[in-house]
Amino acid sequence: MRAMSAFDSVIATTFGSMSPHMKRVGFEIISLIDGVCLARLPYRPEFVGDITTGVLHGGIVTTLLDTTGGAAVLSALDSPVALATLDLRIDYLRPSVPGRSLVARVECFKKTRNIAFTRGIAYDEQESDPVAAMAATYMLHTQIARAPSQP
Amino acid sequence: MRAMSAFDSVIATTFGSMSPHMKRVGFEIISLIDGVCLARLPYRPEFVGDITTGVLHGGIVTTLLDTTGGAAVLSALDSPVALATLDLRIDYLRPSVPGRSLVARVECFKKTRNIAFTRGIAYDEQESDPVAAMAATYMLHTQIARAPSQP
Amino acid sequence: MRAMSAFDSVIATTFGSMSPHMKRVGFEIISLIDGVCLARLPYRPEFVGDITTGVLHGGIVTTLLDTTGGAAVLSALDSPVALATLDLRIDYLRPSVPGRSLVARVECFKKTRNIAFTRGIAYDEQESDPVAAMAATYMLHTQIARAPSQP
Amino acid sequence: MRAMSAFDSVIATTFGSMSPHMKRVGFEIISLIDGVCLARLPYRPEFVGDITTGVLHGGIVTTLLDTTGGAAVLSALDSPVALATLDLRIDYLRPSVPGRSLVARVECFKKTRNIAFTRGIAYDEQESDPVAAMAATYMLHTQIARAPSQP
Repeated sequence: MRAMSAFDSVIATTFGSMSPHMKRVGFEIISLIDGVCLARLPYRPEFVGDITTGVLHGGIVTTLLDTTGGAAVLSALDSPVALATLDLRIDYLRPSVPGRSLVARVECFKKTRNIAFTRGIAYDEQESDPVAAMAATYMLHTQIARAPSQP
Repeated sequence: MRAMSAFDSVIATTFGSMSPHMKRVGFEIISLIDGVCLARLPYRPEFVGDITTGVLHGGIVTTLLDTTGGAAVLSALDSPVALATLDLRIDYLRPSVPGRSLVARVECFKKTRNIAFTRGIAYDEQESDPVAAMAATYMLHTQIARAPSQP
Repeated sequence: MRAMSAFDSVIATTFGSMSPHMKRVGFEIISLIDGVCLARLPYRPEFVGDITTGVLHGGIVTTLLDTTGGAAVLSALDSPVALATLDLRIDYLRPSVPGRSLVARVECFKKTRNIAFTRGIAYDEQESDPVAAMAATYMLHTQIARAPSQP
Repeated sequence: MRAMSAFDSVIATTFGSMSPHMKRVGFEIISLIDGVCLARLPYRPEFVGDITTGVLHGGIVTTLLDTTGGAAVLSALDSPVALATLDLRIDYLRPSVPGRSLVARVECFKKTRNIAFTRGIAYDEQESDPVAAMAATYMLHTQIARAPSQP
């Protein structure tokens, strides 16, 4: 496994801490290398969407994927810029397993002057059995920083 | 404005309360009539995505839209069934205004035997100037209830 | 019904004719007013996706919606610019009826400096019973003109 | 490279031929193994979206991806079933190169009782530099066969 660059380390350390919502939910970047971000949310009873099953609320899954994608995009750029999620698609593949933390792996696989493209998955046990899949685009150089991917 | 039916009233009253995450974030259904749901989240400092601007985190916007869509689908059906968000697309149109609560309006405009289709918007001031637009499909009669739209 | 402006009339007349594919498939703009485009494709045996049913191929439905959206965006702008479809989501709601021409209605409901947002439907009989729903974003001021929405 | 199974070979041979639209545009399956389909469309002047650049129309790219996804899903199943595209998202990454045929690679990475999930790309030169990315879901066991993925 490659080590994070100095730039990626700064992003990984500061990204979650600038967003009250990300701090509140316990968002944590595990690794961030060359446009690929691995990040995690803990399992918490307050994230449950259905009290009878203990399954996570879909909004939690989407929040993790959206934020992880923003970090992946920043890592893929040469210098820090303002960015904002432009649009995002989530496919929910199966219910999450109660009690397990949720991990997202998102890569920025293409960037143009103004747009970055990402795709990723969220899983709770094995990467080969994901809970959700995502595709999202992020706008670069936004004048007013927007929240989703701008912690 | 038409009154809610008895079935819609029951959904509106119980929908948010079965989900710990929805209770935690303060989700509230304003009205639910014939497959159209209007719902609200309060503005809270803990929902902020960017501490320098006070703008809401995109995940909060998506969570509201996903849940409002689930309620709209239930209202469009003749009897309660288990349902789960299958996939969802969000377009972020502009940053939210700090301090304003967020309102979503989602309609279920088509249902087949197994799938319900919805579209909606989220806004913080005027419905004509939305913060985000969404399109989502929900799977009906799911065997294991999943979280996003199954409170 | 309002009349088309001179600018809209020019777009409506020239839009389809600059694209060999649109000419080939018989794309025709019915009306184009203030960012809302109504356009049509004829039913042709060569567009059929399933020989046993006569139902149109989904790619034909998407092609009509994508192109109609491009025209709607142009109409919403003050002056002609290069544009390209950035991403597009289609929900297929039901099979089309064999023998019926396909009509799309797409509106550009939001534009920023670089991005235009659209939503629309395609139908073959009544607008209230659509065949497909779409949401798409278009990039404005593209340096190299791309095909989908660049007639 | 593994060989196609007998079931995959039958699909690969018959898939395009049942759809007049796919025959018309020259759709051809290159390989189909275990839920992964590689397919091709030739470059033809009639597919051009912009006469000034020779770039393919976006609808052609989408048509190829949608159909390739349908074949991938069939290959992932144990026995032939009726299927229909439910929804599809395309991200357009760059203009295609005039004169080059278009290749799509789509994998079915998850199937449930009623839904199959796919993702893929289209490219004209190198798989590492795609023209478009897609994510699509297909409905299985549809009662009335629909066109997009029902050859």
